[in-house]
Amino acid sequence: MSDSTFDSLVCPLPITTHPRVLMAHGGGGRLMNQLIDVMFRAIFTEVQPHDGAVVTSPQDKLVMTTDSFVVRPLFFPGGDIGMMAVNGTINDLAMCGAKPLYLSVAFILEEGLEMATLWRVIQSMRQAADAADVKIVTGDTKVVERGHGDGIYINTTGIGVLHSKQAINPSQVQLSDAVLISGDIGRHGMAVLMQREHLTFSSSIASDCAPLTRPVMALLEADIEVHCLRDATRGGLAAVLNEVAAVSGFQIDCSETAIPVDSTVQSLCELLGFDPLQVANEGRFACFVAAKNAASALEILQHYDLRAAQIGTVVNGRPGLVSLQTEIGGSRILDMPSGELLPRIC
Amino acid sequence: MSDSTFDSLVCPLPITTHPRVLMAHGGGGRLMNQLIDVMFRAIFTEVQPHDGAVVTSPQDKLVMTTDSFVVRPLFFPGGDIGMMAVNGTINDLAMCGAKPLYLSVAFILEEGLEMATLWRVIQSMRQAADAADVKIVTGDTKVVERGHGDGIYINTTGIGVLHSKQAINPSQVQLSDAVLISGDIGRHGMAVLMQREHLTFSSSIASDCAPLTRPVMALLEADIEVHCLRDATRGGLAAVLNEVAAVSGFQIDCSETAIPVDSTVQSLCELLGFDPLQVANEGRFACFVAAKNAASALEILQHYDLRAAQIGTVVNGRPGLVSLQTEIGGSRILDMPSGELLPRIC
Repeated sequence: MSDSTFDSLVCPLPITTHPRVLMAHGGGGRLMNQLIDVMFRAIFTEVQPHDGAVVTSPQDKLVMTTDSFVVRPLFFPGGDIGMMAVNGTINDLAMCGAKPLYLSVAFILEEGLEMATLWRVIQSMRQAADAADVKIVTGDTKVVERGHGDGIYINTTGIGVLHSKQAINPSQVQLSDAVLISGDIGRHGMAVLMQREHLTFSSSIASDCAPLTRPVMALLEADIEVHCLRDATRGGLAAVLNEVAAVSGFQIDCSETAIPVDSTVQSLCELLGFDPLQVANEGRFACFVAAKNAASALEILQHYDLRAAQIGTVVNGRPGLVSLQTEIGGSRILDMPSGELLPRIC
Repeated sequence: MSDSTFDSLVCPLPITTHPRVLMAHGGGGRLMNQLIDVMFRAIFTEVQPHDGAVVTSPQDKLVMTTDSFVVRPLFFPGGDIGMMAVNGTINDLAMCGAKPLYLSVAFILEEGLEMATLWRVIQSMRQAADAADVKIVTGDTKVVERGHGDGIYINTTGIGVLHSKQAINPSQVQLSDAVLISGDIGRHGMAVLMQREHLTFSSSIASDCAPLTRPVMALLEADIEVHCLRDATRGGLAAVLNEVAAVSGFQIDCSETAIPVDSTVQSLCELLGFDPLQVANEGRFACFVAAKNAASALEILQHYDLRAAQIGTVVNGRPGLVSLQTEIGGSRILDMPSGELLPRIC
């Protein structure tokens, strides 16, 4: 597909001949090839008419990560399943300190899905991939019968290249590390929930869905001693802090007032009985850096989002415990969410 | 998980506490971590408690491929969705002339799925990965509400290393190339169909699901001039021949009697009105080799399956046409299947 066709935003051929997905679009024959040729080609950097893509590895250490996306609804303020599927996997690579190189994309489509909907998602994926300078190199399509899916499920798998020799993972966390968050939390989960439940509220909330490669690379290029990076998706910041505390064997002390939460998100959470700390984000990460680098790391993060903040410190104490100093001066244990909070948020 | 626990074939903890999948098993909290720790760990070679896996690239050209599996039912004679998910992606790598190194695995589970079923699938994936000497290095789990899936959908994405400098793809096909098939066709599709529709027949049919790395590597190591390899999955051998004819710009002439079909498969196809050439396989590939290497390539393939055969030749004629010489001496055009034949076969 030529760029001009893509840029025209006009739905291509299968929409005219078949405005909805048929079972045969997943059957490996003419209709599937037409779908690939005319629509999916728009998201691929180079089309290789074969079962896989040959890619170039610039060094001997690569990072591989995979994620499936089943968010309901497919479109919400600030994002959609396509943008999420690209950014989510890019962000998992970034959390390993890796720059994304290649993505694969696999669709499970529901029979009856409107081709125009699929086309919107494809466009969104292409834009997100271009913005992050990542190549989508190979793909797959399956179709399931009407009622056996939710329109579109997407899997993306990413390959990235390690940007530094620092090992970046929860077991690298050290005593007195500073704990930073890259922006305000809870917007993605609340935006999806409002759209799903058709809620209206005083102000609108847009998802924080965004690629995180740039702030992460900026930290690494500034020689910040980064010990661990973790994006706060399912389970929210609460899950991240508990996981890192458990693996590192330290206690983490955080200050509730230091954690940035948008006032609309805060009000909505109070109204609905949610803890913003447990709400999923799609463009926020927690960052564990050496104490000596806390100020310069924060300055870098604030260059990308003014709401970035230091929210806590790694301390000796009860291994695996996350303690939260509350607004009124007390402290409470921040537990690992069990997982029931908000299903189908990513 | 220790190997002894895995080998015991006893269902691990989540089955005792939660015999069925809950929405919370996909929520990013305690229940999801328990599911990963106690069950999914069995399929991973090394568990890295992070969002991605660091892998080693032995050379600068890698192959990446992705495939989702939505087969119904999950278990059938000769295989299951887990074995298929591993072998299918390994085979896509093999078709590029690549040896598989790493796989990612992503599950979309349906709420209410029995943990014992998931455990059977996990065991099957582990066995298939071990048999193919491939490492499963990273994964993901999502849960969708009851009625929004079919128990288990699996995506596997693979990275492999090119085994030779030969470019192997449909555009490499040359005039007078020999067309070989690695074994009898149509068993996988018919085995799944019989199981799905609860059909009984004079003899049972088992799927041909199998990894194809060994015969492919044997061809390459013997310096066979391999131009194109293609596994005959969705759309069957008919789709493969039509795709290769279209991309290469040649005509392909095949002999119907030379194409090996098991007599039970043939009878069942006749009874149900299927063309075995359009039925999906999961362990069969077509192989386009230089004419001078036809005999030695066939000998190698027959070492792995005695039913391997030369079935045709690449000729000048109408570009993209596949012509089939029939049993009674006539010839017919073998068309690209439109795709309606057998949905949800892989």
